[in-house]
Amino acid sequence: MSTTSSEHATPDSGPRPDDERTLTPSSPLTGVVPVVPTIFHDNEDLDLPGLRRVLDYLVDARVDGVCALANYSEQFSLTEAERDQVAATVLEHTAGRVPVVVTTSHYSARIAAQRSRAAQDMGAAMVMLMPPFFGATLSVSAQGVIDYFRTVADAIDIPIMVQDAPMSSTPLPAGLLIDLVRQVPQVRYAKIEVPFAADKLATLVDAVGDQLVGPFDGEESVTLLPDLDAGAVGTMCSSMVPGELGRIVRDHLAGRRDEAVAGYERLLPLIHFENRQCGLRAQKILMAEGGIIGSERTRAPLGPVSPRTRAGLVELAKRYDPLVLNWGR
Amino acid sequence: MSTTSSEHATPDSGPRPDDERTLTPSSPLTGVVPVVPTIFHDNEDLDLPGLRRVLDYLVDARVDGVCALANYSEQFSLTEAERDQVAATVLEHTAGRVPVVVTTSHYSARIAAQRSRAAQDMGAAMVMLMPPFFGATLSVSAQGVIDYFRTVADAIDIPIMVQDAPMSSTPLPAGLLIDLVRQVPQVRYAKIEVPFAADKLATLVDAVGDQLVGPFDGEESVTLLPDLDAGAVGTMCSSMVPGELGRIVRDHLAGRRDEAVAGYERLLPLIHFENRQCGLRAQKILMAEGGIIGSERTRAPLGPVSPRTRAGLVELAKRYDPLVLNWGR
Repeated sequence: MSTTSSEHATPDSGPRPDDERTLTPSSPLTGVVPVVPTIFHDNEDLDLPGLRRVLDYLVDARVDGVCALANYSEQFSLTEAERDQVAATVLEHTAGRVPVVVTTSHYSARIAAQRSRAAQDMGAAMVMLMPPFFGATLSVSAQGVIDYFRTVADAIDIPIMVQDAPMSSTPLPAGLLIDLVRQVPQVRYAKIEVPFAADKLATLVDAVGDQLVGPFDGEESVTLLPDLDAGAVGTMCSSMVPGELGRIVRDHLAGRRDEAVAGYERLLPLIHFENRQCGLRAQKILMAEGGIIGSERTRAPLGPVSPRTRAGLVELAKRYDPLVLNWGR
Repeated sequence: MSTTSSEHATPDSGPRPDDERTLTPSSPLTGVVPVVPTIFHDNEDLDLPGLRRVLDYLVDARVDGVCALANYSEQFSLTEAERDQVAATVLEHTAGRVPVVVTTSHYSARIAAQRSRAAQDMGAAMVMLMPPFFGATLSVSAQGVIDYFRTVADAIDIPIMVQDAPMSSTPLPAGLLIDLVRQVPQVRYAKIEVPFAADKLATLVDAVGDQLVGPFDGEESVTLLPDLDAGAVGTMCSSMVPGELGRIVRDHLAGRRDEAVAGYERLLPLIHFENRQCGLRAQKILMAEGGIIGSERTRAPLGPVSPRTRAGLVELAKRYDPLVLNWGR
């Protein structure tokens, strides 16, 4: 198993500018920015060496950035001390090779601002936050959402990605997202991963496309093509096949839509199986199969998929011969 | 403003046994066990002296126990370090005068177990947990719920109260609660605060009443009388009028149902206003009005109620001349 990046460079990788950790409105983050899963040993302890190998694999997959501590990182299963360990490990080990987005969501605006400041101080290029919510019932008004993001923005200088996902019990209708972008200028990125994401992205691009430099697709890229057609400039996928997804995004952004369509339709059976049958466990299963990590364990009460689903995923993935199954061998 | 307990003893208070921190199946916790709100200064910093005054007021209200770090304590707006500070303050300052329940919910079974063990080591008499969930969509299977509570039980010796509340996106149907009580014997208390709580309590008492020594009412006691009629032996209310609610519970448990009915119907307009118009802010408003605490601030994005609602609450509460408006004067 390799732990260095250079041996596994993919054919289309090349030198990267040194200043990628600093994003500017004229040089925004686009392309493929996978969520980095948090790696555990079989006893559920953090596996930081495993996490470092995942980062090397992702850099070799020619990702444009990575995102730590998202929901696909099982952020909801970590202590605050573990969050700090994971963020530090991701930032230290990527060491500027790619920009790092750190998720800093918390119901309390004050705590979200503190987390965001800490992420910036550690070297994060961007923070990502869901709107404030707790559980199934504690939601927040539209004005409360805007005030919340303003509190976060006041604590940092780096840009903010707002995450619009069904997990939040606080809804983000398009009108509120537009108000948010207009009233809190640091909100320059939006990851839309709710039903009918494409129309929402198109509405945002139409209304505030000049300020929102980073409309993003999410949700395992399962609606990537409609979202790119609607104006998305990047995708936040899992770490399962980010290299393969990156080619689709680059093709589309370069005007090679036919190639993007073909790539998306070819990959859809696999990412759809991930999205509907496995969730965040798919990336860990294939990384374990490919020798990148030693354990595919998730923290209880999130248990493994069934043996039949696991076998189906592995069989399907092998048809694609993806980097995730080859990098660690 | 007083900070000692003895000056404000209510007429029906009396000596309490020394060993109340230890609950046994034959001597369970019953009666009134209010949630202790977490007190903040106007700048949202923790106000621990304010919290201590609240505890003295609650002891003087002749509560049978208190519960720290519940949702009405804004536990969702605290850092882990603040959780520890609050739990330590509550346990140190009550100093065995009443048993302390500490809420230790976390999505991760491992972290919930760690929190529960820490609470026991600090002197908690009981822990309370919701089933595992995150946000509006991350719910857990029935078997996953039982495994979760078994993991927590294996880490501690004190009893567990399961909290059945709409905030959780993991449902707890009566059949699952019955299985939970049967399979995890430390689950000896259940606070039911979902719609139709009374029928659920009656079903539980009928099926596992011998093991479930503490079927509890919750939700600001707004369904207290039907829940007592169904077999509840206690209520977990807010800290607004726990002394007044305690008399209703004691009357009912002593067979004086007519007095309990009269007391409940008299108090219902006030606790219903709390439940439907104010939520956790009602207790803080009246404590500030009564001079117990210096600030009624909640942490953003949870803001204040409207001025008209606040005025309505205070006007209504004055009709009852409750201890909360008099203790601090």
